[in-house]
Amino acid sequence: MSKVTAQMSVSLDGCYAGPRFDGTGSWIESAEAAGFFRVTRWATDAMAWRERQGFTGGERTVDSEIIEEMFTAAGAYVMGRRMFDGGEGPWGEEPPFRAPVFVVTSSPREPLVRDGGTTFTFVTDGLATAIAQAREAAGGKDVAVAGGGSFLRAVLAAGLLDELELHVAPVVLGAGMRLLDERLGIDGTEGIELEPLRVVQGPTVLHLRYRVAGRAPLLLDDRGSGGGRTAVRA
Amino acid sequence: MSKVTAQMSVSLDGCYAGPRFDGTGSWIESAEAAGFFRVTRWATDAMAWRERQGFTGGERTVDSEIIEEMFTAAGAYVMGRRMFDGGEGPWGEEPPFRAPVFVVTSSPREPLVRDGGTTFTFVTDGLATAIAQAREAAGGKDVAVAGGGSFLRAVLAAGLLDELELHVAPVVLGAGMRLLDERLGIDGTEGIELEPLRVVQGPTVLHLRYRVAGRAPLLLDDRGSGGGRTAVRA
Repeated sequence: MSKVTAQMSVSLDGCYAGPRFDGTGSWIESAEAAGFFRVTRWATDAMAWRERQGFTGGERTVDSEIIEEMFTAAGAYVMGRRMFDGGEGPWGEEPPFRAPVFVVTSSPREPLVRDGGTTFTFVTDGLATAIAQAREAAGGKDVAVAGGGSFLRAVLAAGLLDELELHVAPVVLGAGMRLLDERLGIDGTEGIELEPLRVVQGPTVLHLRYRVAGRAPLLLDDRGSGGGRTAVRA
Repeated sequence: MSKVTAQMSVSLDGCYAGPRFDGTGSWIESAEAAGFFRVTRWATDAMAWRERQGFTGGERTVDSEIIEEMFTAAGAYVMGRRMFDGGEGPWGEEPPFRAPVFVVTSSPREPLVRDGGTTFTFVTDGLATAIAQAREAAGGKDVAVAGGGSFLRAVLAAGLLDELELHVAPVVLGAGMRLLDERLGIDGTEGIELEPLRVVQGPTVLHLRYRVAGRAPLLLDDRGSGGGRTAVRA
């Protein structure tokens, strides 16, 4: 069955953009954009990303291979409404997805068919339904969560994500829009356990892929006290 | 000259413990402890850590080698007051440092000499002074920041840290005590730039070592728009 995968570029402290744009002035000159450009620079420099956008140039590195692999693996995409609203204009007549995209929204809208194989279908009855429809459309390939950050967090929190890949840029932003935090709704008695699948150090960015094993209680274990290996529930 | 190094075990979302203990009940049964034990489990399982604590058993893995290397590299330590207060009792007559330790505190106290080479010197005129004294005492070896988290963050924020190693446990805690966040005092116009030095995937934990290059302005760069490579200040 299709896996549900997600990938996101983040700073070492887990921010995918700077502090959220407050609507003053233009987004592109905001601190949110400055942080976003810093953590995604590796991708915009990569040849595979540039080709997909119809741009020239770019570097053929392991970063570029990882982007190519990502595009190849995805048979369909799901995304949130904020991401679609921000992208609809810039993506233009031939968006980079070249596959069915399911947009989770509260506003019904007719499907939007674009050139190059991208169709946007608007799903008004929630995340799980959108993912089910995307699986159906993916033809055995993966369903990729296209973002944005809040949407990805919601997919993870709902237990619907199979694999998470973070592209960690070597920078600490300190302030910014954080991917994984209290809004996951974990209360300190459990964690979301992961299993490392792959680590690739690119020219600057570190690519970390994990299988999401799911929520599990945190244990108080006394191994550190020199005793045995018994564990009791915290 | 001696480098100032720090290492910390964190979850994938950057927490080194669960939500801060509120004083109700016992620490060891708190959510703070449950998160702390989850992210440090790799170390308590490692033979090199257990040997230092005088415990038997443990596993001789790459994790154990990394701990051994860390103890060997450190010629002196600096630590915060909360860490010392929490450790003074449990560390007992023969603390695991076996080297001079400089404790930053507001309470003057005579030096405390313990067995096995550990001495605690209490420094009341700040972080920079404590680090300078530790350098002097380190005999050309590294000055290691022994923690805790707030103290490490303060050293990084003050521009006094040369190398940071994170041991990333494959778990998302969501809620917890976060190492790198707004309290670094970065305002969204700059980031702390890092340079990847080493990546080691242990049996479970990922060991990431960075050189701290220092604060630098975040740039708005238009590479992603298909244009050239000019960058303007955000």
